[in-house]
Amino acid sequence: MIIARIHVTLKQSVLDPQGTAVTKSLHALGYSEVDDVRIGKFLELKINTTDRGAAEARVTDMCEKLLANTVIEKYEFELVEA
Amino acid sequence: MIIARIHVTLKQSVLDPQGTAVTKSLHALGYSEVDDVRIGKFLELKINTTDRGAAEARVTDMCEKLLANTVIEKYEFELVEA
Repeated sequence: MIIARIHVTLKQSVLDPQGTAVTKSLHALGYSEVDDVRIGKFLELKINTTDRGAAEARVTDMCEKLLANTVIEKYEFELVEA
Repeated sequence: MIIARIHVTLKQSVLDPQGTAVTKSLHALGYSEVDDVRIGKFLELKINTTDRGAAEARVTDMCEKLLANTVIEKYEFELVEA
């Protein structure tokens, strides 16, 4: 079993209104040291295989096809043996 | 400047319908080796301080008060010097 830990985040040039909202809420709560917040997704996939190389290719494929919108998002992942 | 990388995920005992939907979509696309998907949030906070100890306490506070719903979610974070 391999676990893929995937981070999908907005590209740096894309506005993040959700992050802006959280920044404002943190300021309202008194956390004025917070300069910026960016919010993304974190996915954990359990993959039934032992072949790391194949898993890497397949996860890349999944990100490109379904998990990330590569027009506005970027993804990175790491594979962990479980 | 310190960057806090925060993962907010559903507790293991809590159902993740979004993850189930993604699992089904992956199966429909032919990725039958995917056994399970859990989906969480990933937040990156830029914090204007150089005091790691203080930052750790403040970020824990932010997670408890705003960023995570500790009834159903757990959080973990790491601090990175930027």
